[in-house]
Amino acid sequence: MRFFTRPESQIFTQPILQIDLDKLVANYKTLCQIIAPATPSAVVKDDAYGLGAPEVARALYENADCRNFWVAHALEGARIAEFVPEANIFVLQGIGVDSWNLFEEYHLIPVIGSPQMLAFWKNNPIEGINPVIQVETGLNRLGFRPEELKKLSKNDLKTFGMVMSHLSCADEKDHFMNAHQLENFTSIREKYFPGLPASLSASDGAFLGEDFCCDMVRLGAAMYGINTAPYRLNQMQNIITVKAPVLQIADLQKGEFVGYSATYRAASKRKIAIVSIGYGDGMPRSLSNVGKVFFKQKGKMGEARIIGRVSMDNIICDVTDIEGLKIGDFGFMIFDEYTLDDIARDSATISYEVLSRLGKNTRFKREYLAK
Amino acid sequence: MRFFTRPESQIFTQPILQIDLDKLVANYKTLCQIIAPATPSAVVKDDAYGLGAPEVARALYENADCRNFWVAHALEGARIAEFVPEANIFVLQGIGVDSWNLFEEYHLIPVIGSPQMLAFWKNNPIEGINPVIQVETGLNRLGFRPEELKKLSKNDLKTFGMVMSHLSCADEKDHFMNAHQLENFTSIREKYFPGLPASLSASDGAFLGEDFCCDMVRLGAAMYGINTAPYRLNQMQNIITVKAPVLQIADLQKGEFVGYSATYRAASKRKIAIVSIGYGDGMPRSLSNVGKVFFKQKGKMGEARIIGRVSMDNIICDVTDIEGLKIGDFGFMIFDEYTLDDIARDSATISYEVLSRLGKNTRFKREYLAK
Repeated sequence: MRFFTRPESQIFTQPILQIDLDKLVANYKTLCQIIAPATPSAVVKDDAYGLGAPEVARALYENADCRNFWVAHALEGARIAEFVPEANIFVLQGIGVDSWNLFEEYHLIPVIGSPQMLAFWKNNPIEGINPVIQVETGLNRLGFRPEELKKLSKNDLKTFGMVMSHLSCADEKDHFMNAHQLENFTSIREKYFPGLPASLSASDGAFLGEDFCCDMVRLGAAMYGINTAPYRLNQMQNIITVKAPVLQIADLQKGEFVGYSATYRAASKRKIAIVSIGYGDGMPRSLSNVGKVFFKQKGKMGEARIIGRVSMDNIICDVTDIEGLKIGDFGFMIFDEYTLDDIARDSATISYEVLSRLGKNTRFKREYLAK
Repeated sequence: MRFFTRPESQIFTQPILQIDLDKLVANYKTLCQIIAPATPSAVVKDDAYGLGAPEVARALYENADCRNFWVAHALEGARIAEFVPEANIFVLQGIGVDSWNLFEEYHLIPVIGSPQMLAFWKNNPIEGINPVIQVETGLNRLGFRPEELKKLSKNDLKTFGMVMSHLSCADEKDHFMNAHQLENFTSIREKYFPGLPASLSASDGAFLGEDFCCDMVRLGAAMYGINTAPYRLNQMQNIITVKAPVLQIADLQKGEFVGYSATYRAASKRKIAIVSIGYGDGMPRSLSNVGKVFFKQKGKMGEARIIGRVSMDNIICDVTDIEGLKIGDFGFMIFDEYTLDDIARDSATISYEVLSRLGKNTRFKREYLAK
């Protein structure tokens, strides 16, 4: 093992992903205040949107007393179970032949969204578990439709421990679907599930007011720093930083091309930097010729435009105006002033997708920040 | 542990990713013939484009005698080293303070692409390793620029075991950059590296003829089934299948909306299926309202259009014309007749990016097929 201390040895190759668990917990607590008196719960599906479900779930369990977690698949529930021993773990995609054993072993709670899944559950119940029923109110995704609810027997209705639905347009405050879905949900609750705890909203619905919060709100994207109420400034803190080292700095002569398919041509002499991160690390390829890399410069963040195609391992950017840049300096792809929401806008998708892709890549040096 | 045999128990929730290692090896062998007499080598960076670098490297090592592998980062080399004990492992992003120890421990071979990295190497050489030098010929990414080559001493030049470069437009047979880069590369070889083994082409360059193959070709995307010579029909076999179970089937009334932001509205009564896969499993969100899901139907593959937004865990498709579909049937997202190239076209990106995102997701039941 060699240790490097000489000043000339500042050559780095590995990108870094930092996840601030303290800020995550702070966001969760802010959301708890916004939705009070509704019970908070945390959505940690998709490996906590790629950030590491065990680490995220444990931080929320230990530092914010979170006792209700949502995952999409049973195996995701199994992965967090040991870290949240006293918590409820709800499984949104429900239960089937390929997951029943995990439900039994880890005492997971299925969300049942169709008569067929309910029939399966009734044939294969698990002692001591009351499933959640999902009802369809306008998203037209999973959930019992009105004609299916009508066919439920009294015993069927008593099977469930909670009733839930999901909003389709809750990130648009005045979208007609919000009131429409709330009305549907309220009427289903009154007709079929009086007195049963109910959950309608995720992070976006949390900002729509008390009616939408019902008994439990499923907090996900906002907790991870995404602005789920984009009609107003983000109240959440950014929790992630992505940075990667400059591998090379070079001059680009007038007329030279850059990157695959030669999609950038220099109209004048430029200075470029090759940064050691690419779509293989989750940076959207749609940032090609559009996105930005930022460099620390005299206490400010200098902005460098991505030029040419984003490739699997590298991004090339125009650093003509970045003074004093040297090999081994880090380029910032996501940080407090250029967040998930910003990179998503520049790559023409949503923050959720950027985040979901990002954290699953195994080439990052991954750092969890927490006191 | 419960086993399910009753016919009514056909409820599934988990998506499946199958990787056919035999077809991968067959593709590699086909490519070996195309590039002969050049030496083949396999690109397994980015976790073998997400398909599992240990499994892929081992299959190629054991069943196709592959003895040269390329990764991007040292830690990727470390992950495959035990499976390819007699092979060379080249590291494209090169060596630095944050990776030197891995190079020493696993005897990895760095690709050196800048004078600064060469200086670092000369201060911290590893006994018995001859690095590769990367030279810049037109991509304007990593590599020594002409003015930097001029400054190399005779001893510097003798340091290297191979010289390499990378093509920018090799998937377009007649692109002017191909001849331009070959000419640059040839002249650099003659001037600075006479007699030294050379590598210019990846999978796409492999189809450009013997001049482009030089001594070693770096076979990546084509081996994974991607058509890297899109100006002619694909000579490679598809090696992956992605399928996911139908969780629910429902009627959609005229005028109803589907999915987030209500981006689909039914102009007539439709039948929809909710399939248990989403962008959290690597399906591009840009397939929203554009992509397709396929269902086995009387020996044919019925085609169902994706409607509404692709969400994190689910895709909704229009199955009005799919007869006999039932819950628990599997929808195919990628298979032999709708390959990576097809899904990439429909999602407005390249196959490489789709593949790179896909295999890293941990919710798949992952099946490696091999005799």
